Amino acid sequence: MTQANAVVLLSGGLDSSTVLAMAQQNFNCYALSFHYGQRSQAELMAAKRVSETLQVREHRVMNIDIGQFGGSALTDRDIAVPDAADSDPDAIPVTYVPARNTVFLSMALAWAEVIEARDIFIGVNAVDYSGYPDCRPEYIAAFEAMANLATKAGVEGHPLRIHTPLIDLTKGDIISAGTALGVPYQLTVSCYQATDDGEACGRCDSCDIRRAGFKAAGTADLTRYAEA
Amino acid sequence: MTQANAVVLLSGGLDSSTVLAMAQQNFNCYALSFHYGQRSQAELMAAKRVSETLQVREHRVMNIDIGQFGGSALTDRDIAVPDAADSDPDAIPVTYVPARNTVFLSMALAWAEVIEARDIFIGVNAVDYSGYPDCRPEYIAAFEAMANLATKAGVEGHPLRIHTPLIDLTKGDIISAGTALGVPYQLTVSCYQATDDGEACGRCDSCDIRRAGFKAAGTADLTRYAEA
Repeated sequence: MTQANAVVLLSGGLDSSTVLAMAQQNFNCYALSFHYGQRSQAELMAAKRVSETLQVREHRVMNIDIGQFGGSALTDRDIAVPDAADSDPDAIPVTYVPARNTVFLSMALAWAEVIEARDIFIGVNAVDYSGYPDCRPEYIAAFEAMANLATKAGVEGHPLRIHTPLIDLTKGDIISAGTALGVPYQLTVSCYQATDDGEACGRCDSCDIRRAGFKAAGTADLTRYAEA
Repeated sequence: MTQANAVVLLSGGLDSSTVLAMAQQNFNCYALSFHYGQRSQAELMAAKRVSETLQVREHRVMNIDIGQFGGSALTDRDIAVPDAADSDPDAIPVTYVPARNTVFLSMALAWAEVIEARDIFIGVNAVDYSGYPDCRPEYIAAFEAMANLATKAGVEGHPLRIHTPLIDLTKGDIISAGTALGVPYQLTVSCYQATDDGEACGRCDSCDIRRAGFKAAGTADLTRYAEA
């Protein structure tokens, strides 16, 4: 049986790399990454290497200049990335990029229409979502409903599905699942301010969560951290 | 009373220019245009001139390369733009750009978050929509619902609204309303294959609809058409 096409959003981080390995089990994967003004280029290099290692059908990097709007520590050099210890766990963090998942899923939808894919994968996670509104299941359901009204495929009775295989998993569960599928975690980058050669700061929220995940999974963490 | 900010999607065509004039009545307008691989540059030049004439707060042109995905006569030079006489009125036309309004509204949403605008304007029209699924009221309602789950503003109880003031208007109604508001229609471009200096082909669907609209409104059509 020939496999169907799917578009997989791939940041080059731990989560999306795991999603890609999961999607590859049942689909021909078209991996989509974005250059959206992020400070660090390490993620995009990781996305490229992970795509090669997992042998996707195609990997594209789109330029979209959300960064020009400002408003996030991830793209705006005037806003500092906070250390984990300084974060308010109830607030939406300053590392939030405006409408990021909506923009990314919209681009995935455009590509999906052209390659006649009815399946889009995204590595959002409701457990570790750090207060981002666009990582919640109700948001994903609303995007899927909108997508099915927006597109030829939806209108013609071939519904699009937004797959979120990580949505209920802890970071430890994700790493365990990905390890079984051969995800090359040593290539992935989670740090908000990784150096261009992939060294993580070891101090931000994202580094904290990653480190704890490997510990919970009982898997060796091969990440290079600047600070232990 | 100080006016609130709004983001207005502005293609440089007749409809979106009318929407901008309408939005300017009650909001500080931030006009957003896209270079998305369209063949003709005339539209973007029109958007710039219309923004200046209507004195918006700010006008931005974002580069987003949907064109790289192919699939539409508007961005893919291997697909011909059909003459109006050859179009099947019931089919989704080949000039459909995949997920275009979803991508454009997503970018508007990103800018809206940063400038704290809760109002986004788009010139979709259900009467003359030519079979585009993402011009229907049910699509717009679904996008709005999604946007309110996606964003800080929505989560914090400040709902975003997607305004579609043209949704039920005929082209004649639109031109009558815009003429009363001083829309500089002679600067706007509707043609799918206008030359860079703004001359319309006079043969495509879009030219046909535009011409009939001015006739219905009883307003002089100052458009330069290559073919009468």
